[in-house]
Amino acid sequence: MSFEFEIIARDGQARAGVLHTPHGDIPTPVFAPVGTAATVKALPPKDLEALDVSLILSNTYHLFLRPGDELIRDMGGLHEFMRWKGPILTDSGGFQIFSLAQTNAIDDEGVTFRSHLDGSRKRLDPRRSMQIQQNLGADIIMAFDQCPAPKDRAEVEGALKRTHRWLVECREAHPDDDRQALFGIVQGGIFPDLREDSAEFVTSLDLKGYAIGGLAVGETKSEMRQTLDHTIPRLPVDRPRYLMGVGEPDDLVEGIRRGVDIFDCVIPTRLARHAAAFTHSGRINLRNARYKMDESPIDPRLDNYASGFSRAYLRHLVVAKELLAHYLISLHNIDFLVSHVAKMRRAIIDGRLESYASQFLADYLQPMPDG
Amino acid sequence: MSFEFEIIARDGQARAGVLHTPHGDIPTPVFAPVGTAATVKALPPKDLEALDVSLILSNTYHLFLRPGDELIRDMGGLHEFMRWKGPILTDSGGFQIFSLAQTNAIDDEGVTFRSHLDGSRKRLDPRRSMQIQQNLGADIIMAFDQCPAPKDRAEVEGALKRTHRWLVECREAHPDDDRQALFGIVQGGIFPDLREDSAEFVTSLDLKGYAIGGLAVGETKSEMRQTLDHTIPRLPVDRPRYLMGVGEPDDLVEGIRRGVDIFDCVIPTRLARHAAAFTHSGRINLRNARYKMDESPIDPRLDNYASGFSRAYLRHLVVAKELLAHYLISLHNIDFLVSHVAKMRRAIIDGRLESYASQFLADYLQPMPDG
Repeated sequence: MSFEFEIIARDGQARAGVLHTPHGDIPTPVFAPVGTAATVKALPPKDLEALDVSLILSNTYHLFLRPGDELIRDMGGLHEFMRWKGPILTDSGGFQIFSLAQTNAIDDEGVTFRSHLDGSRKRLDPRRSMQIQQNLGADIIMAFDQCPAPKDRAEVEGALKRTHRWLVECREAHPDDDRQALFGIVQGGIFPDLREDSAEFVTSLDLKGYAIGGLAVGETKSEMRQTLDHTIPRLPVDRPRYLMGVGEPDDLVEGIRRGVDIFDCVIPTRLARHAAAFTHSGRINLRNARYKMDESPIDPRLDNYASGFSRAYLRHLVVAKELLAHYLISLHNIDFLVSHVAKMRRAIIDGRLESYASQFLADYLQPMPDG
Repeated sequence: MSFEFEIIARDGQARAGVLHTPHGDIPTPVFAPVGTAATVKALPPKDLEALDVSLILSNTYHLFLRPGDELIRDMGGLHEFMRWKGPILTDSGGFQIFSLAQTNAIDDEGVTFRSHLDGSRKRLDPRRSMQIQQNLGADIIMAFDQCPAPKDRAEVEGALKRTHRWLVECREAHPDDDRQALFGIVQGGIFPDLREDSAEFVTSLDLKGYAIGGLAVGETKSEMRQTLDHTIPRLPVDRPRYLMGVGEPDDLVEGIRRGVDIFDCVIPTRLARHAAAFTHSGRINLRNARYKMDESPIDPRLDNYASGFSRAYLRHLVVAKELLAHYLISLHNIDFLVSHVAKMRRAIIDGRLESYASQFLADYLQPMPDG
């Protein structure tokens, strides 16, 4: 029963489903907030539960460096450590090595790098990534991959070769079990033929799910959509599809329209730390003086704990550098994305996704109130 | 009915009571967490409600400077602005001018100072302090006073003269009403005769409550206790007594033993920002490496949302500078003090305060586990 994926409705290419995991069912499509260091920044688990968050992502790279995957294993695993009862997905560490580590040297067996925390020398390879993720104990774990700059063909080709080789090693180190599902990652940058090769190779390994990696890392939105158009039809319909690192509200629409089931992104909590908030009329920044006396909630169309507070109060908290600002704006932003995806799931079931999507995009992409 | 103070039980000099306010009843003795800038740092109001916090304090000095008392008035008052439904007490601003403002010049009419935020020149005097506190709309407001270094007799005498003069001006600017109660402040440093003079003068104005100011600002614990011993018998038994700025767990015992009804202190949230937590066996610091693999909660004798998390996890959050550390440790520390005072109230009603107090102090003042 674990990791069975049921599709309960379709609307065009979009699907609504349920992914069963050892820590509970995930209604799909789903947006997963990111708890980088075993905490979704500023929010206690109870508030995430209250927002109906059904999946969170945590980062192998960060937890490997601090507090260490063996410590977390000895403390009963990541669920127990951070007191999150629901499903967890961990990434492989590959992406962060390239984006965060001070220096790194890649070879065909793995990557040697210096920790961004203390400069110490570390190494990750497919087997070690699997071992770390086994120690962490997430429900869904990701193959160790190399995520290149998406438009440099030579770099993308080299990365693809390694990613495929490493996937086989990950698969050997982690055969299917009832506790953890291994997902493979399709790479290939913005090049249709490379995406095609990658999809063919990765899906040949018959994994529990497939991710589309290497997007939202420098390409245009139009390139992202074209890559999805080209890649998704090459993934099996009966497995969950995960678009990594994507979470802009309009990108969620475009992904779901094309048949993506799972998304994750740091954007709701990262924006919150800069006082930026999603609204149905576009993104606003609560530091703006225009909100000084504004008695309305962040977004009158959303109803959560944060919507009990005025923009004027939130602006005051932001200007006064009060910790409560992070809590309230993070809560709002996560609710915005989670509710948005839940509404799309409902719309798929009701066969009216396009009507929801076009209305949402028309409202959201209007000229920004701050701008 | 507003501001009626009922004493429901006595045990030695200690009393258990209820103070009625326009925003609800305050069971006394009570510990009030401090929400300096219209937020108890890191905690949303709902969590304070869940901890049975029945009174919070907010700072006139800070709110006057930012966002401004008129803005808060226009936003419906402080309760509405910060969404705190229960009673609020505001201080007068006097203490912060002397502890925070960049420079200050005192004269017999008031104080001119430079804002610690932007260096701008400001002035506060008794009438302005009353006006600000009326704009904020707290249930209990404090007379504008001068809090001197407690051991410098000449300074204390001068401050006392001004404090008394200013109290009369505050009383004129704020006669009794059903919305806000004005409390007077007894000063006098550590000098018994000055405390005596001050108590006599301040109580002659027949106010709704009386505060003991100028303690926990540099004197020894023994001097604090002696001053309470000397001052409290000179306050009327039928009015609430408020010991300002005091919140160490052992000081709460000593205050309640001597008949204090109300306390406030920044200590639970300030300690939390330095990773320090109260336990029944003394204060601990969660940054300490000894907690790296410690699966127990902060204090096994306390049961709140934070006690669902291990010391190992909290240490990880502290070391990783995660915002959730502030939330969880602040919640724990506030619950520790609020529960401690609630247990003393129960003990007073049951006539066993001394047994609770001696057991608590024996446990709490044992050699510290960190030390």
